Amino acid sequence: MAPALELLEKPVKNLPTKALPLNHDGPTSGDDLKLESTERHQRVMNIFRVFIADLCQQFGEGHAGSPMGMAAIGVALYKYAMRYSPTNCDYFNRDRFVLSNGHACLWQYTFMHLVGVKSMTMDQLKSYHSARLDSLCPGHPEIENEGVEVTTGPLGQGLANAVGLAMASKNLAATYNKPGHEVVNNMTWCMVGDACLQEGVGLEALSLAGHWKLNNLCVIFDNNSVTCDGTADVANTEDINMKMRATGYNVVDVYNGDTDVAAVAVALIAARSSDKPTFLNIRTVIGFGAHNAGTAEVHGAALGVDEVANLKRSFGLDPNEHFHIPGDVYDFFRDIPGRGKTHEANWEAVVAKHRIKNPVLGAEFALRVAGKMSDDWSKLIPCKEEQPTSPTASRKSAGVVTNALAGNLNSFLVGTADLTPSCNVAYKSKVDFQSPDLRTACGLNGDYSGRYIHYGIREHAMCAITNGLSAFNKGTFIPMTSTYFVFHLYAAAAVRMAALQGLQQIHIATHDSIGVGENGPTHQPIAVAALYRAMPNLLYIRPCDAEEVAGAYISAIRATETPTVISLSRQALTQYPQNSSREGAMKGGYVFAEGDDGEFDVTLIGVGSEMVFAMQTRDLLSKKYSIRARVLSFPCTRLFEQQSREYKLSVLKPRSDKPTIVIEAYPSNGWERYADASVAVNSFGKSLPSEDTYKYFGFAPEEIAPKVRDLVEEVQREGIGMLRGDFREFNGPLKIGHGP
Amino acid sequence: MAPALELLEKPVKNLPTKALPLNHDGPTSGDDLKLESTERHQRVMNIFRVFIADLCQQFGEGHAGSPMGMAAIGVALYKYAMRYSPTNCDYFNRDRFVLSNGHACLWQYTFMHLVGVKSMTMDQLKSYHSARLDSLCPGHPEIENEGVEVTTGPLGQGLANAVGLAMASKNLAATYNKPGHEVVNNMTWCMVGDACLQEGVGLEALSLAGHWKLNNLCVIFDNNSVTCDGTADVANTEDINMKMRATGYNVVDVYNGDTDVAAVAVALIAARSSDKPTFLNIRTVIGFGAHNAGTAEVHGAALGVDEVANLKRSFGLDPNEHFHIPGDVYDFFRDIPGRGKTHEANWEAVVAKHRIKNPVLGAEFALRVAGKMSDDWSKLIPCKEEQPTSPTASRKSAGVVTNALAGNLNSFLVGTADLTPSCNVAYKSKVDFQSPDLRTACGLNGDYSGRYIHYGIREHAMCAITNGLSAFNKGTFIPMTSTYFVFHLYAAAAVRMAALQGLQQIHIATHDSIGVGENGPTHQPIAVAALYRAMPNLLYIRPCDAEEVAGAYISAIRATETPTVISLSRQALTQYPQNSSREGAMKGGYVFAEGDDGEFDVTLIGVGSEMVFAMQTRDLLSKKYSIRARVLSFPCTRLFEQQSREYKLSVLKPRSDKPTIVIEAYPSNGWERYADASVAVNSFGKSLPSEDTYKYFGFAPEEIAPKVRDLVEEVQREGIGMLRGDFREFNGPLKIGHGP
Repeated sequence: MAPALELLEKPVKNLPTKALPLNHDGPTSGDDLKLESTERHQRVMNIFRVFIADLCQQFGEGHAGSPMGMAAIGVALYKYAMRYSPTNCDYFNRDRFVLSNGHACLWQYTFMHLVGVKSMTMDQLKSYHSARLDSLCPGHPEIENEGVEVTTGPLGQGLANAVGLAMASKNLAATYNKPGHEVVNNMTWCMVGDACLQEGVGLEALSLAGHWKLNNLCVIFDNNSVTCDGTADVANTEDINMKMRATGYNVVDVYNGDTDVAAVAVALIAARSSDKPTFLNIRTVIGFGAHNAGTAEVHGAALGVDEVANLKRSFGLDPNEHFHIPGDVYDFFRDIPGRGKTHEANWEAVVAKHRIKNPVLGAEFALRVAGKMSDDWSKLIPCKEEQPTSPTASRKSAGVVTNALAGNLNSFLVGTADLTPSCNVAYKSKVDFQSPDLRTACGLNGDYSGRYIHYGIREHAMCAITNGLSAFNKGTFIPMTSTYFVFHLYAAAAVRMAALQGLQQIHIATHDSIGVGENGPTHQPIAVAALYRAMPNLLYIRPCDAEEVAGAYISAIRATETPTVISLSRQALTQYPQNSSREGAMKGGYVFAEGDDGEFDVTLIGVGSEMVFAMQTRDLLSKKYSIRARVLSFPCTRLFEQQSREYKLSVLKPRSDKPTIVIEAYPSNGWERYADASVAVNSFGKSLPSEDTYKYFGFAPEEIAPKVRDLVEEVQREGIGMLRGDFREFNGPLKIGHGP
Repeated sequence: MAPALELLEKPVKNLPTKALPLNHDGPTSGDDLKLESTERHQRVMNIFRVFIADLCQQFGEGHAGSPMGMAAIGVALYKYAMRYSPTNCDYFNRDRFVLSNGHACLWQYTFMHLVGVKSMTMDQLKSYHSARLDSLCPGHPEIENEGVEVTTGPLGQGLANAVGLAMASKNLAATYNKPGHEVVNNMTWCMVGDACLQEGVGLEALSLAGHWKLNNLCVIFDNNSVTCDGTADVANTEDINMKMRATGYNVVDVYNGDTDVAAVAVALIAARSSDKPTFLNIRTVIGFGAHNAGTAEVHGAALGVDEVANLKRSFGLDPNEHFHIPGDVYDFFRDIPGRGKTHEANWEAVVAKHRIKNPVLGAEFALRVAGKMSDDWSKLIPCKEEQPTSPTASRKSAGVVTNALAGNLNSFLVGTADLTPSCNVAYKSKVDFQSPDLRTACGLNGDYSGRYIHYGIREHAMCAITNGLSAFNKGTFIPMTSTYFVFHLYAAAAVRMAALQGLQQIHIATHDSIGVGENGPTHQPIAVAALYRAMPNLLYIRPCDAEEVAGAYISAIRATETPTVISLSRQALTQYPQNSSREGAMKGGYVFAEGDDGEFDVTLIGVGSEMVFAMQTRDLLSKKYSIRARVLSFPCTRLFEQQSREYKLSVLKPRSDKPTIVIEAYPSNGWERYADASVAVNSFGKSLPSEDTYKYFGFAPEEIAPKVRDLVEEVQREGIGMLRGDFREFNGPLKIGHGP
């Protein structure tokens, strides 16, 4: 019996004909889909829609339109298509769901309530837009809350997160599944609005998912054609179906997404059998049922008291009942928790059998599920004795560590935005993450078990996809990215979301500082560090040599709820085996060199690739001016701030007659906390060979030393108080106006 | 005679059949194109390619592959298709050319030399990758140098810049052209590689150009299918032609882009007659002629001495001749300067006639060409007496100014990333910038003379396109953008390029601070200000009331070589007519309120929407603790740093027994320069109503005042020196780890 498909030949177009059955215990096609009656669907949707209207009316604000428009999609997804367990939202093999149009969160909250997610009580739903600190219903879904896979809101990123979640499944499946024992085979569903398909990060991610043929991804387009500014046509008139086909998707059209639950359900379930990612183009009317349905007015506002009443009347409901969900609507979803428990039980049985048949692999899989690595990572980090002593670029030193970690531990997924030759993250035995289909089609050597990811020239998607990899299950992956540091400005909105969500990941950011050579000012990352140093819950670490690089990796791996950006040089760096220490680096700042005979006249702060200038200036000050300089290494201000006040003061040693000067090839913003003066770069850079660039910007010790001497003498004469409110920039302040 | 088209039926596919002749004095179709012989083309290309190889070999580095591969495209473009004047590169109605794959700059530099751009001497060409400070050949094209329209390098952005340049032409043409007197009708040519078509910013911009039907834009795709990581297939297997058709382009294929100059020329020239933007898909071989042609090896490296010699031999050239451009190759381009002068003369004649027929319009056009506004902008800014006194959101105050400016002056182009209802930049009489074709197709009300731009939900393209608008001709436009401040992280890479290039523009960034209401932490722009405050040549201004908003606009309009970000509140702000001053705001920081009877115990710094907490705390300190607080307003640290040392110290008044405390709802990074302690937000935000959010983060005066009192007493006891190296955060330091 296939009533659904038969009935729906017209409403659904372009269903894939080639069914690739997956080992699902849920329905795999329309054939075994048992649909409730159209009347029951209608009843559930009516109640849902007025409930949304009530919730927004409570405080006279909120996003009502999209949730109301997406009612049929929600019923189809939560009742028929999605495989999950509402009483155990974290069940490992659950389908992942991402609401990329995060402002429609009431939709998700309300369906979570209906299907039986315990924490999502009626009382909680009413906390939407309230001042309650315990609310589980913030204005956008937040990862901290049960049943939410990723925090969304900044548009387009959720779609990229979903691509990451789908990749994570593919990689685990390819690594651990055995015929008959598929321990990972979940789908990823991603709800998107117009915006996610306009944002560059969404487009980048869509291209990649198409390229990788992630057939476990279904993008559900709530095509209501309305954005804040009115009709979406005002800024977008492209042929989205044709575009998505060109990008490698099976495109399925649903023409009545407002009320035809059956059509949506059939289309959703067909996505499980697709050979490509699926793009469901579902036509809906924003604010369906409301007086201003189909207009931008209903996007981000409540309907108004009278109109809510009218809406209820038009649905044949009592206008005087508020927040009312009748028993029969709860009954409609009553089977979901039980089905969820069955999913879990089936999965556990498969995992148990898999482990008996494949004890070694099964044990590793169990560790991954528990969020642990399969081996002791700490012994893979080179010890101090193994470090180079001759000048070595820190991108090379980092490459050694990445090689050891990623070469040995399946937890590490290593990616690059098309900078394999420059970023040194390609580990020896690497296998590319690719669709096996492309072996014959393009001669590519890779498969889904591969852990080296070519993201193409798509930094923003790389980082937003990485958030999906991190969020799949805490600790299962430690994803890494790599690109030039300056290109983090393309990706920072995604890195910020990692920090906000507490997602562990490691970003290898090479070509930091002005020592990037002739690529010039566009490639010299002036001002980018200031962003990351100010960003909560992020470690921005600039190691000065290989030993500090080791410390940076250890800090990053230990920071299980924090993304880390390791900032590395293109150019070779002098190694300081007598001075540098991983333990010091892990404290963020430490004493690198004391002054002569333990006394000092001035403190110099050296950072990353500029340490060499601090140390050379120290020598010159001693030889030429008999000035005793101590040097601090300061790879990470955030880690330093976590230390005790006693430790900090013991490192900084503030004295009323001794100034502190920071030497770093970035603007000095933020260093004023520790220093009284700076040798800094206060304009954009210059296209010159690396060494010449440093000279051009005044980093020669011969130029720095006399300025330090002058300041030391001035402070000795007049006291340090004279520098309060008068921070000294040896290279002048940041300027208005063009040119150096 | 139409030899070209006849010969090239096969090599060029999909030439548009519907020719829409423009009023060009250059060739408009293949019919009147007089091609040089294939042999001459071959000769010029051979010489060009070995010259590129020589230049890279000089210092053993540089990007040789793409320039060598693009030789035929260059000959076709610079000899046949592009309308420009090499002896007057700034000629107003010139075709604009953007090298979006900026690393291929040697290609542009060398063609500029060949066609007779005076400054681009042989000596200059040899300065590529040298340590010469006077080099006009940096590693990426720079706007400062003659003949370069925009600085490129960060991939994808050049393409968006080109869209902006094409829009600028369309807008000027629609505003000033009269039948028979087309004063603006130039084309925009944009060279792109694989990367620009992968980057999100490029994809966003392409969508917009397709939507707007910018038929004066021709995107030239150097389809060599190789990126740094090898074959482009490794990360991209989409059907680009189908995708571009779906996006609204005429797609033309050229199959032999390596040597078939005629095919490329015909395709380029046909773009002038297209009814849509043109996408030329030109197949080339990277490093054509070299031993490692067609591989990633030749992308960013010199060939090697022996291989350069081999290359020359294979082309029948003398391997012992270096940097040799024979006279016949110069002869090939000898007609270009003369043709350029003719273009100029013709244009000047048209402009003169136009002015006679249309004296008012013509006079305004002349002003715009001279980079001036058509009226005195300063009288459009509301004067102090006109400012509101009741609480007003600064986004509303800014809306008043935008309305006055954009409503009256054609120089202002105002855009929004789909936030018209929130950002208040829609001026009363606005006409949308749209293709008139869409009036009937979609019922849109707008045309190319419109100056209100719906960018859709595409922040990065909005800002990168804005750079093109600014760069069209200095002062002709002052483009404005608008979005929420937090979404500047999507766009910051483009705003940075504006600062780097010295492009004037105004960014309206609303919903700053944590007072954005229930949208929650994803929408609260923690850390973004730190980036802009550290960025060279950028004004980030946070006015505290309407009067300071006026000052912000004046500063922005006066800063003719600097982009400005005006940071505005969602929530209503208390107005301070007794305290605030536009002149003060324009100095960046000033005394807002003195202490009681002119004396003080502590200085409070209030910023933007947090000024109210500084002023309320001042009152409370006085009433409850008899502590005299003076208050500084500090809308722009950059403007403040430009003031004299005397002024700065007179505002800051550093005293050894009086602390300074900054109150701002961002991390305190950077404020350490002026303050000893902070009331700041050192985590991500929280989804709560605006007032509750401030309370949650400790901004209630009742909470601040006792902390201030304690610090004042501590400093009176122990002296200010105790705070050196011990900056106090009343709300704790920025944390590692997840959660508030």
